[in-house]
Amino acid sequence: MKAKVLINGYGSIGKRVADAVSAQKDMEVIGVTKTKPDFDAKLATELGYKLYCAIPDKERVKAFEEAGIPIEGTILDVIEEADIVVDGAPKKVGKENLEKIYKPNKVKAILQGGEKAKDVEDNFNALWSYERCYGKSYVRVVSCNTTGLCRILYALKDFGIKKARVVLVRRGADPNDDKTGPINAIKPNPVTVPSHHGPDVVSVVPELKDKIITSAVIVPTTLMHQHTLMVEVESEVKREDILEKINETPRIILVREKEGFSSTAKIIEFARDLGRKRYDLPELCVWEESVNTLGNEIFLMQAVHQESIVVPENIDCIRAMLEMEDDKFKSIEKTNKALNLIK
Amino acid sequence: MKAKVLINGYGSIGKRVADAVSAQKDMEVIGVTKTKPDFDAKLATELGYKLYCAIPDKERVKAFEEAGIPIEGTILDVIEEADIVVDGAPKKVGKENLEKIYKPNKVKAILQGGEKAKDVEDNFNALWSYERCYGKSYVRVVSCNTTGLCRILYALKDFGIKKARVVLVRRGADPNDDKTGPINAIKPNPVTVPSHHGPDVVSVVPELKDKIITSAVIVPTTLMHQHTLMVEVESEVKREDILEKINETPRIILVREKEGFSSTAKIIEFARDLGRKRYDLPELCVWEESVNTLGNEIFLMQAVHQESIVVPENIDCIRAMLEMEDDKFKSIEKTNKALNLIK
Repeated sequence: MKAKVLINGYGSIGKRVADAVSAQKDMEVIGVTKTKPDFDAKLATELGYKLYCAIPDKERVKAFEEAGIPIEGTILDVIEEADIVVDGAPKKVGKENLEKIYKPNKVKAILQGGEKAKDVEDNFNALWSYERCYGKSYVRVVSCNTTGLCRILYALKDFGIKKARVVLVRRGADPNDDKTGPINAIKPNPVTVPSHHGPDVVSVVPELKDKIITSAVIVPTTLMHQHTLMVEVESEVKREDILEKINETPRIILVREKEGFSSTAKIIEFARDLGRKRYDLPELCVWEESVNTLGNEIFLMQAVHQESIVVPENIDCIRAMLEMEDDKFKSIEKTNKALNLIK
Repeated sequence: MKAKVLINGYGSIGKRVADAVSAQKDMEVIGVTKTKPDFDAKLATELGYKLYCAIPDKERVKAFEEAGIPIEGTILDVIEEADIVVDGAPKKVGKENLEKIYKPNKVKAILQGGEKAKDVEDNFNALWSYERCYGKSYVRVVSCNTTGLCRILYALKDFGIKKARVVLVRRGADPNDDKTGPINAIKPNPVTVPSHHGPDVVSVVPELKDKIITSAVIVPTTLMHQHTLMVEVESEVKREDILEKINETPRIILVREKEGFSSTAKIIEFARDLGRKRYDLPELCVWEESVNTLGNEIFLMQAVHQESIVVPENIDCIRAMLEMEDDKFKSIEKTNKALNLIK
């Protein structure tokens, strides 16, 4: 029997997780929800997803009817069927949904990185906390930036991380966002140092407490985030050993400037040429030339596709929470194969 | 008698240095040069600068005549009059000018940051190397990014710098540049870590050798560069002491997000509202909220106006090389006052 997954909020993350769940052999989408009848809602029904109104409210339901978009009912008509809900609601709404809908209806739920660590039982990254989240009911898949950091720090963990310093250069807006800026500025966000990204990594990897310091700026681009890492480790380390560890780690790929990967634009072009739906690239990309060591310190630069990096993590999180597979590497392999990831 | 300054290359830096020299009491512009009769050339003559052809070549001279822009001759007709030349030529052309024009004509010359440290006698920053450049003949004023780093590291030097880690987020193009990108990407530049900015700081501050590590990316904005600094110092330091040092250091101002300085766009709006010509802001801007300490490490973020930060440095460099003022702080004060800088 396939695990029954409800996607609450068919938005940027929700629509991707819906497709990713559908691609797996051991789970299925029993429905997706929208708060209003926009083109995303229409597309969901055209793609064959059963559509429900995310808010159990007569006026809302009527709006769908008036727009000629057929719905099956409201979230309350389907939630009992679900083994788990993947929440794709906007920031802070996930927490509301958890308290008002998921807990009262006794359904397991995955929240996204916009919610707070303290509002859930645990925080998920497939490499670091799969076992810890096994069988749990309310788990948060950490944000795109945190996921990228967790992956690379997993690759580096055997060198003994003493202090990781990271500067994040964040994309200003997603490609479909026509209201957010900046379009010509660099914006410290937050202006205070360190930023919240360090503690967010620690929510997944408690042993990094006081060992990771992050800061972030926002810049005018829509494609990917970029991170510069400076990681002090226990002893001197060779560049080749780092490259080997990166190669061994799932969902991290090396890109080379000398092969044309001179920027995030070139990386995304690669995803487009691969024929990836929506040009998604859930693999973390590390620039090979940037990997360097000076004594006990490792340097590298990486790029994170903000819209898709957490998608395979959501799939593995479902398997962990529903106790469908107790070996994280097997789950990762299943997910990657179904999604046709490079590794 | 005023020092006679020739500006060779009335471009982005040259036109600003020409105005800055003209604003001083102890120096004057005896001429500016252009290689071709574009609108910059026309404007130079309208502003009252004597215009010369930068390349002593008949065809070039003819082009100016044909464009109806009066010139006084070629650079060779004016160079003997000059006490010093400020070279504003594009990258690498400065070195050629040094070898082919300045040295044969035995005239002192200032090159800009696009040239290499090894091609000149010394490298200039008013705070760090004024005395060292005193009386010298061929000196380079370091680049905008290096100047910004030199200033802030001067403010921090008394804390005993053990290791400075810096990530530079560079503007993709100047505002008048309509051919350079990226317009939607983050581009490691260089993709190798560390970048050349660290060694460039060391060309000014030799005692920082092996103590500064920089890396850089380019982003789609035209207004300013942004730097994130993480500086390990000899012992624990208080935030207030850092702010005090910054306040004591000329040409660094503190900007506060809470007062509306949320990005480089807001900082430039401030320069526009000040009525600054070309919205120039030669003062280094440090975000006050970003200044923080964790044990022996200092964190801060700063913004550099790439087009103008080196302009007052060129003025002080002229005074040092022509031995016009032996106290760097007095030169800085004269320059700042004439240019109406905040401090």
